[in-house]
Amino acid sequence: MDKAIVLASGGLDSCVTIACAVNDGYDAALLHINYGQRTQKREDKAFDDIAAYYNIKNKMTVDIDYLKRIGGSSLTDMSMKVEEDTIPASILSSLPSTYVPFRNANMISIAVSWAEVIGAEKIYIGAVEEDSSGYPDCREIFYKKFNDLLSVALAPESNVQIVTPVIHLTKKDIVKKGIELNAPLHLTWSCYQNEYTACGVCESCKLRLKGFELAGIKDPIPYK
Amino acid sequence: MDKAIVLASGGLDSCVTIACAVNDGYDAALLHINYGQRTQKREDKAFDDIAAYYNIKNKMTVDIDYLKRIGGSSLTDMSMKVEEDTIPASILSSLPSTYVPFRNANMISIAVSWAEVIGAEKIYIGAVEEDSSGYPDCREIFYKKFNDLLSVALAPESNVQIVTPVIHLTKKDIVKKGIELNAPLHLTWSCYQNEYTACGVCESCKLRLKGFELAGIKDPIPYK
Repeated sequence: MDKAIVLASGGLDSCVTIACAVNDGYDAALLHINYGQRTQKREDKAFDDIAAYYNIKNKMTVDIDYLKRIGGSSLTDMSMKVEEDTIPASILSSLPSTYVPFRNANMISIAVSWAEVIGAEKIYIGAVEEDSSGYPDCREIFYKKFNDLLSVALAPESNVQIVTPVIHLTKKDIVKKGIELNAPLHLTWSCYQNEYTACGVCESCKLRLKGFELAGIKDPIPYK
Repeated sequence: MDKAIVLASGGLDSCVTIACAVNDGYDAALLHINYGQRTQKREDKAFDDIAAYYNIKNKMTVDIDYLKRIGGSSLTDMSMKVEEDTIPASILSSLPSTYVPFRNANMISIAVSWAEVIGAEKIYIGAVEEDSSGYPDCREIFYKKFNDLLSVALAPESNVQIVTPVIHLTKKDIVKKGIELNAPLHLTWSCYQNEYTACGVCESCKLRLKGFELAGIKDPIPYK
């Protein structure tokens, strides 16, 4: 079986992305990256639960503290308030405060290094363009340009490409896709604020809840 | 003054790159990245010495352990021998064993995150195409494609570009450029093997020594 690395946070989108990689016939290796986000411990648990569900042998968790030290995001800076709507933030005024500068490029770069060493051909990431609050690194053009970069950036015998199976799906369609592929949605975690019962009001919770509602399915995780 | 971030290892090429950024009129912030390379402590000292020479206020050292954990390079894996010539290595057979998979992309990604937060416009990196042992991430095309990526990857108000002032220079010309710009070459460290007196036989030492020789200047650091 050919190998693929899946970037997996423990959230809904990446859980369905794992399901897509497995469904595409890949031997999936999972890469989980902690970057000092508020709900890190809860996400770690979701990641481990999902990996166990899929009986994944090759998984790696990488802790990077630098995005937190660099700052600029309410997702990593505890003194900043997580917005309940997509109100522009202070530092990069055109984006929500939850934007973590160049986050996905940092994560993908780690995945690419690992892919070259283990000989994985694909890197799956659960980026979603429509529901991504305007984050530039969740758009298809970002992944197209990253793949252009990969075509010149690696050892001649390496062949690594990024795959974004849910990028054009709505949250509703991601929920439906997850159900269709038997993804363990009950093990996922999306809330940016809380670790035990989801807040239901942060941007991430709202998008998730709306997705389940439109799909006509009850979200199986607990809310406040 | 406009800000620029310079990726600085403590080596000859990045020292001259700092000199170029300063000479170009930028307020330079220095980013030093430890990735578990053999000569990390000695490079740390070189970095601090060079930063002090230029009286740099804004500097950051980031430790990333994951490239060492991911492996695949004799630069980070102590069980692999550093080659004395550019003999192909085992894992990625067409490149020297000192190749660290996708290393420069990992480093640049950290620099870009920091650049967005502090409002730096340029990222200087001392990559050298001709003397780079065939590393794909030292070629101009790599930086061109990375700049293409940056044009779509950031917040709309961010404008970050990578600058590679020594990419087409030979080691000889880098030494000459350093002398011309009063760069503190005596504070730099290049050896991949040793921390006190440079080995003189590893690939990096050989390239450096040849550069000084061709420039007609005595290398001011101690050799075995």
